[in-house]
Amino acid sequence: MDTAERLVESTRELLWERGYTGTSPRAIQERAGAGQGSMYHHFRGKQDLAVAAIRRTADDLRTRAAAELDGPGTGVERIAAYLRRDRDVLRGCPVGRLTQDPDVLADPALHAPVTETFDWLCGRLASILAESRATGELPAALDPDDTAAAVVATLQGGYVLARAAGSREPFDRAVRGAIGLLNAAKGAA
Amino acid sequence: MDTAERLVESTRELLWERGYTGTSPRAIQERAGAGQGSMYHHFRGKQDLAVAAIRRTADDLRTRAAAELDGPGTGVERIAAYLRRDRDVLRGCPVGRLTQDPDVLADPALHAPVTETFDWLCGRLASILAESRATGELPAALDPDDTAAAVVATLQGGYVLARAAGSREPFDRAVRGAIGLLNAAKGAA
Repeated sequence: MDTAERLVESTRELLWERGYTGTSPRAIQERAGAGQGSMYHHFRGKQDLAVAAIRRTADDLRTRAAAELDGPGTGVERIAAYLRRDRDVLRGCPVGRLTQDPDVLADPALHAPVTETFDWLCGRLASILAESRATGELPAALDPDDTAAAVVATLQGGYVLARAAGSREPFDRAVRGAIGLLNAAKGAA
Repeated sequence: MDTAERLVESTRELLWERGYTGTSPRAIQERAGAGQGSMYHHFRGKQDLAVAAIRRTADDLRTRAAAELDGPGTGVERIAAYLRRDRDVLRGCPVGRLTQDPDVLADPALHAPVTETFDWLCGRLASILAESRATGELPAALDPDDTAAAVVATLQGGYVLARAAGSREPFDRAVRGAIGLLNAAKGAA
């Protein structure tokens, strides 16, 4: 990895572990094994680097979500596969955790990729749910946009419940609960 | 309100706004209009005061939840009323937001009331869902504990999505989505 790459990857890790406010330029340089001059040669500063890091994390999340959501199976099966995918639960969602950082929310350049990621995810799920409704897998009464938001919220809230419990168990329960509701809704179609 | 009461109420507000790490003893004293001597007369310090504040916030959450969950209607109707209740969405959940604070998670005295609140809420919802299953309102295949976790996660994740969007809209969508799934499951019973 070249220095610019190491700086971006180190920033991604630190943002996930400590958030934006808790990440200093010095900590990024130390983790990347890069000097201050080298950091300012490649990036204008912490904010510039964080934008690059958040964009890359958001791209990764989209790529991984698409692997399940564009895979084989019915709409409900693909959404269940996406929900069931193994996650580093107690570390939290690398994108969702940024919403707890007031400095991220206050800075449009940092906030935009967070908003866009959830918009993309809700939109992708809504279009799968709309297909499932069209093919009769899900009942006509189920609103695709509302259901998509509930699915994404279940994951994000699952992380919150896992942190509250100090255990991944409530996350796994919430995932099974959302899949159980989607399967029950299938039975009503 | 007496001084001890004002100190607890000020701490509750500050924990909600700034979290535990971001709340200084001085900020609490200023908001409460109390001197340092008075604060240390009533409480051993910030941690002691925060435990009292978190316990009171957790009690409030339980009392308000019980108002809908113990109200009239079928199980699904009561859970829908609980989900639909008006919330200060962009401020976030006063209990859930504490899970983002590493100092809260690291201190058992601060962490315990957070864990207990979600355990109580999931347990109460699970017993209502079990009743609905027993009366035939919900299908036998729906697991009460898993579904309860999904319902609580939908709210907690709805707050995350609202912060990501800078708008309460995704929270409201997620709530409607969860109610839509419960109603669809009713149709399958």
